[in-house]
Amino acid sequence: MRDVAVIGVGMQKWGEIWTKSLREIFVESALLAMDDAGIDKLEAMYVGSMSPGLFAAQEHIGSLLADYLGQAPIPATRVESACASGGLAFRMACMDVASGMHDIVLAGGVEKMTDISGGEATFALSTASDMKWEGTCGVTFPGLYAMMAVAHMEKFGTTREQLAQVAVKNHANGSLNARAQFPTKITAEQVINSVKVADPLNILDCSPITDGAAAVIVVPADMVKNFQQPGVKVTGTGHATDTIALHDRDDLTVIDSARLAGEQAYKMAGKTPQDIDLCEVHDCFTIAEIMVTEALGFCELGGGGPAVAAGHTALGGKIPVNTSGGLKSKGHPVGATGVGQVIEVVEQLRGQSGQRQVKDAKVGMTQNMGGSGGSSVVHILEVM
Amino acid sequence: MRDVAVIGVGMQKWGEIWTKSLREIFVESALLAMDDAGIDKLEAMYVGSMSPGLFAAQEHIGSLLADYLGQAPIPATRVESACASGGLAFRMACMDVASGMHDIVLAGGVEKMTDISGGEATFALSTASDMKWEGTCGVTFPGLYAMMAVAHMEKFGTTREQLAQVAVKNHANGSLNARAQFPTKITAEQVINSVKVADPLNILDCSPITDGAAAVIVVPADMVKNFQQPGVKVTGTGHATDTIALHDRDDLTVIDSARLAGEQAYKMAGKTPQDIDLCEVHDCFTIAEIMVTEALGFCELGGGGPAVAAGHTALGGKIPVNTSGGLKSKGHPVGATGVGQVIEVVEQLRGQSGQRQVKDAKVGMTQNMGGSGGSSVVHILEVM
Repeated sequence: MRDVAVIGVGMQKWGEIWTKSLREIFVESALLAMDDAGIDKLEAMYVGSMSPGLFAAQEHIGSLLADYLGQAPIPATRVESACASGGLAFRMACMDVASGMHDIVLAGGVEKMTDISGGEATFALSTASDMKWEGTCGVTFPGLYAMMAVAHMEKFGTTREQLAQVAVKNHANGSLNARAQFPTKITAEQVINSVKVADPLNILDCSPITDGAAAVIVVPADMVKNFQQPGVKVTGTGHATDTIALHDRDDLTVIDSARLAGEQAYKMAGKTPQDIDLCEVHDCFTIAEIMVTEALGFCELGGGGPAVAAGHTALGGKIPVNTSGGLKSKGHPVGATGVGQVIEVVEQLRGQSGQRQVKDAKVGMTQNMGGSGGSSVVHILEVM
Repeated sequence: MRDVAVIGVGMQKWGEIWTKSLREIFVESALLAMDDAGIDKLEAMYVGSMSPGLFAAQEHIGSLLADYLGQAPIPATRVESACASGGLAFRMACMDVASGMHDIVLAGGVEKMTDISGGEATFALSTASDMKWEGTCGVTFPGLYAMMAVAHMEKFGTTREQLAQVAVKNHANGSLNARAQFPTKITAEQVINSVKVADPLNILDCSPITDGAAAVIVVPADMVKNFQQPGVKVTGTGHATDTIALHDRDDLTVIDSARLAGEQAYKMAGKTPQDIDLCEVHDCFTIAEIMVTEALGFCELGGGGPAVAAGHTALGGKIPVNTSGGLKSKGHPVGATGVGQVIEVVEQLRGQSGQRQVKDAKVGMTQNMGGSGGSSVVHILEVM
């Protein structure tokens, strides 16, 4: 397989975008990525989207978006793994280029979530759970992550305050990101006193519902010199599945798909957690970030709460996590999220992150998760 | 890239399967494919499904099906390109193995379409069209293909009788296929007198709504000797997109995505239309088969109607098309259809097709189509 690199990134501000359609927000971000790379022609594209059918009454979006981007008849493939769809689209684009099939491939993600009611959006999101045993029994995602949080608190003594610190940190980071949906600093007190969703999770423990898109351009690493931006090499990829139903797992306090996908990526890249300079993780809920920082080996099991409380995962800490603001502050347009994570890491490794720049960042990581951990996709990227 | 081959196939009878769920019908077919290959462990899987969200209120099916198949935590990726989702899953599995990423990969497809009302299914299918300009304006797929049929009849003199001959031929083939949904011979008179759906298309010009799944096992060609079944080599693949909205096309009488995907596959395999011994094409409507046989070069433009009327595409004809019964008789569980096509070709090339066996079949082709031609995926397979 050939080595691959990212040479273009594009993303508009995420949020409630009522004046533009799914195809418009995707094309805007894709054109930014192509402009960033200095290209006007793609050879193939992959689009991650969780449920354009339920959120926007439109399937077949691979072809639709290739056409609206002016790139038909190129092969365009939509991939889906719930909220990990974007990370998976990036993985497929890397595999495509690595295989030698194509040289210039776009990996994008998009979700248009606010054109339906909140109840309909909650239903659409619940289809990432096992609908037979979870969704149709009335469990929504805050409820599923609340069960994991309760188990984690019980087993490891993780506290309500530590959960809140994840949100506080990510909003602090997001306040430095012009593309974040909620670039607003918040306090632990605000999180703890915000309205309860599913005990112990409050509304400020939850990532929002978001419209957004993101795109990156992937090429063979040895072609990087032909483009205007510095290349960022993709040195590790991992993808693992798990039961999507929580009740089938041995242990609610460990996200095994993240652990396994992380191990695959570390092995491929020849890296350990100590080598990672920054990591974007899937903080759909505050407890998720705590569990994923443990699964990826940035601290021991049960150490995620104390780590965030001690500032180890803050900007300037030992391992900055979610410098972009994460899903919590930047927003969570589910299919786009994984690609947005790659963009943050690429910009950090290029040294283009302004006020939230991680000093001397050389190796970055992304972890994108489907459902309550039914799938995880992990990538390691490095400066060339 | 490494050469790849199919060494296992599995498919149950398609139809209205009210007593089993999406996950059950998928697992049954996947286990048949694994048994056929003589394996009990996969390294990765790809699943084509158009809209499990709208048809069955369940997304995240890559992970769900990997788990129910007993294969989690392997990477499992759902891909979608409307009714071409199955063919695209097969293409991704081939790319995965060709890249060297994995050695034993399952490509499957599934759709559970009859658990919702006919109106809801018609809506779900219409999301393969451009919903902004077609679906929400009231055009359904019979209407879209009817417009193509009218244009084809006007330009080339294709007749109502020739359209009917496609259905007559495919039902004759399907009557020899125990897994077909409607294994019933029909006459041209029955087609012509059946109830009108969208002029000039009648109900017997339309493929049915179907529950079904299909799976094949893909491995490196040089590993074929390790398995119990004869390997069938995948020598060509093509994937092309087009505007999914009909009104944006220059010519309604040519399906460009099929033509372009076919050209890619012919070039990769070093073959011409004259080398193909049999072809499974996407006959979602009778006019579609006529147009695709032209696009793939089995006859000249406008020659598709006369070709079927002359028996050239029948069993025993110059180029047998849809020996399985096609979508028309075998059924059209949209995400599974493309994988079902591969199964028919593999079994023909193995000489396992019983009464509908094409004599001395050495080279077979599949063409799977999304929407009204917004995407096409073509493969060429050969005996080893």
